[in-house]
Amino acid sequence: MEKRNQLKVAILTENGFEQSELTSPKQAMEEKGIAVEVISPQTGEVKAWDKDNWGISVPVDKPLSEARAADYDAIFLPGGVMNPDKLRQNKEALEFVRAFHESGKPIGAICHGPQVLIDAGIVRGKGMTSYPAIRTDLVNAGANWVDREVVTDQGLVTSRSPADLDAFNAKLLEEIGEGIHEERIP
Amino acid sequence: MEKRNQLKVAILTENGFEQSELTSPKQAMEEKGIAVEVISPQTGEVKAWDKDNWGISVPVDKPLSEARAADYDAIFLPGGVMNPDKLRQNKEALEFVRAFHESGKPIGAICHGPQVLIDAGIVRGKGMTSYPAIRTDLVNAGANWVDREVVTDQGLVTSRSPADLDAFNAKLLEEIGEGIHEERIP
Repeated sequence: MEKRNQLKVAILTENGFEQSELTSPKQAMEEKGIAVEVISPQTGEVKAWDKDNWGISVPVDKPLSEARAADYDAIFLPGGVMNPDKLRQNKEALEFVRAFHESGKPIGAICHGPQVLIDAGIVRGKGMTSYPAIRTDLVNAGANWVDREVVTDQGLVTSRSPADLDAFNAKLLEEIGEGIHEERIP
Repeated sequence: MEKRNQLKVAILTENGFEQSELTSPKQAMEEKGIAVEVISPQTGEVKAWDKDNWGISVPVDKPLSEARAADYDAIFLPGGVMNPDKLRQNKEALEFVRAFHESGKPIGAICHGPQVLIDAGIVRGKGMTSYPAIRTDLVNAGANWVDREVVTDQGLVTSRSPADLDAFNAKLLEEIGEGIHEERIP
């Protein structure tokens, strides 16, 4: 991996991400001097979902087709019911996520975000949490699911909902600061 | 079960059901003289999702808390990303669905509707299809998932998306006509 002076994090998302679940971690990372890029199969912009209706649009910094996992130090997957539902069907998105897993880089996912990790095939044996609706799917995929505001396991950071964002952001920043988790590399 | 002259089917749903996935099977059943009741944890009405935004509101005929599975001959679960996500977290909804399963009555589910069947614990060993996004979750829950417009297994009828509605409606009506599937009763 090339050596950079500034840490850089990829936020991978699709239309229908839960607004605060993208904007809050993005702001928290940027306040710590981390460069954050929004990456999406969409080009131009992606549209947020804000509680009970469509929300703001956010610029896409790089189309997924041009993004290389090697250029980022960590990846974060926001939730929302529509966004991960789209990403989990996208082979390019799943390969992108797997590349972070296989290089031991921190991975953050909140709410329904962990649905993408199920299809990326990287949850078996992991301590995790999520939005309660997808608990059964994570358990069936082999995760050790717990009901806690934030769970960390080998650089994988997960939370349940927007109410957990403060705890999530703090733990995600901590893991990004620690860098590569060698014990996760297959 | 009390003997009725007219067949009666329960449509169980929450806000965010995919509009055509409720209205089309409802109309197909009513055209055959079947009484159809919309049942929901919501009272008053439930709001549809129509492709990319909120759609029509549909009256709730009976609140879930007052509905008895014994009063219906079959149950149907429409899809949409939001509706099954809510129902699968609702214990009363899961018990209602299980009562149909345990009495061998036909069960229809389309698109994301089968998510509810995962949490009801009734998919293991069943031949099924669904919206492709939740394929992995159904496979992990023990279903024999196939990519076909409509799949029937012991009175369980499933389809993938609104594009399959004609085939789905025809097969659902056929299963409702056949009545109790004794081989499914535990």
